[in-house]
Amino acid sequence: MTKQKATNITWHEGHVDRGDRQKLLKQKGATIWFTGLPSSGKSTIAFTLEHALVERGHLSYVLDGDNIRHGLNKNLGFSPEDRNENIRRIGEVARLFADAGVLACTSFISPYRVDRDQARKIHAEAGLPFIEVLVKASVELCEQRDPKGLYKKARAGELKEFTGVSAPYEEPLNPEIVLDSGALSPQQAAQQVLDYLHGQGLLSK
Amino acid sequence: MTKQKATNITWHEGHVDRGDRQKLLKQKGATIWFTGLPSSGKSTIAFTLEHALVERGHLSYVLDGDNIRHGLNKNLGFSPEDRNENIRRIGEVARLFADAGVLACTSFISPYRVDRDQARKIHAEAGLPFIEVLVKASVELCEQRDPKGLYKKARAGELKEFTGVSAPYEEPLNPEIVLDSGALSPQQAAQQVLDYLHGQGLLSK
Repeated sequence: MTKQKATNITWHEGHVDRGDRQKLLKQKGATIWFTGLPSSGKSTIAFTLEHALVERGHLSYVLDGDNIRHGLNKNLGFSPEDRNENIRRIGEVARLFADAGVLACTSFISPYRVDRDQARKIHAEAGLPFIEVLVKASVELCEQRDPKGLYKKARAGELKEFTGVSAPYEEPLNPEIVLDSGALSPQQAAQQVLDYLHGQGLLSK
Repeated sequence: MTKQKATNITWHEGHVDRGDRQKLLKQKGATIWFTGLPSSGKSTIAFTLEHALVERGHLSYVLDGDNIRHGLNKNLGFSPEDRNENIRRIGEVARLFADAGVLACTSFISPYRVDRDQARKIHAEAGLPFIEVLVKASVELCEQRDPKGLYKKARAGELKEFTGVSAPYEEPLNPEIVLDSGALSPQQAAQQVLDYLHGQGLLSK
């Protein structure tokens, strides 16, 4: 747990409540947390889902390496502390988006259970749905895809602490959804998440 | 439309573009950055504006001390470096919200020009509107209000580096909007911002 430093502030309620946002957006805000090995297909599925949601009149937004690592988290590196802080901030930002009524999709390896569980915890405390989605693919499959040549670099020792090669990936024990990345197309995978969102009553049109 | 299936939609793997969000939300995403002394009325006006926007069918969300200091920025204190990082992160998160199509209202003292200008810069780089709103009130008026008794504590030396008492406040040189907090009710002030948003073509219904 990160220590709370600021003390001279008080809590007060915003003037717009969650029901107002739900009515406006015809959906409940939630975080859809994609996790999996590098090149497992997380971002492709997340963006496919985002597109399908927006096309159906729902507001969704993907947080991924591109808009986080170059902005909010550009002062973080890849040390264990920085990786932890990286995921902590992403969890907090996703919670803000979900609180605003958005279906926030996060697409990060997020290899450690403790970090993902912390993100889950702050959502639970705020009464917001947290949907952990394991994008399951073997290291062999991911390494075969390797669109950015990262596995190759990791095997050559050019990338240190690379998840799946030289750093561990801890699979979720009880994810809400498991997507078999080797068997499903991105469209089929996104459809599975969409069906789950419907089933949970998060989409009201 | 509850169990709509993916028969008449196309599937995309790329990013949703800004035009799609604009069409969906009937607004352009933007950041409305409130700045001013403690107790100048920033949050009251921001929440009044948020309420007015949502009531009119627009999606707005307030980022303020309550949802930021206890979450994303709970590992920051009040040292100069931490204050700078506080505002930097808020600027980055507001930019993400604006990029998602939301009218993000930030309500922080944000006393330094250089920090606000940095937030403005990252919005400009992303092609997103940044509307700086100075909530103008004299230290005397703010101190008279002092709902949380903070000025009293600052005068007693219990709060160090308190903006307006023992730390400087740098007024914006060219804010988009100046609200005279002594003369306007929160509703009148919010209306002035609303008129500005309309005038800029950010609200399309």
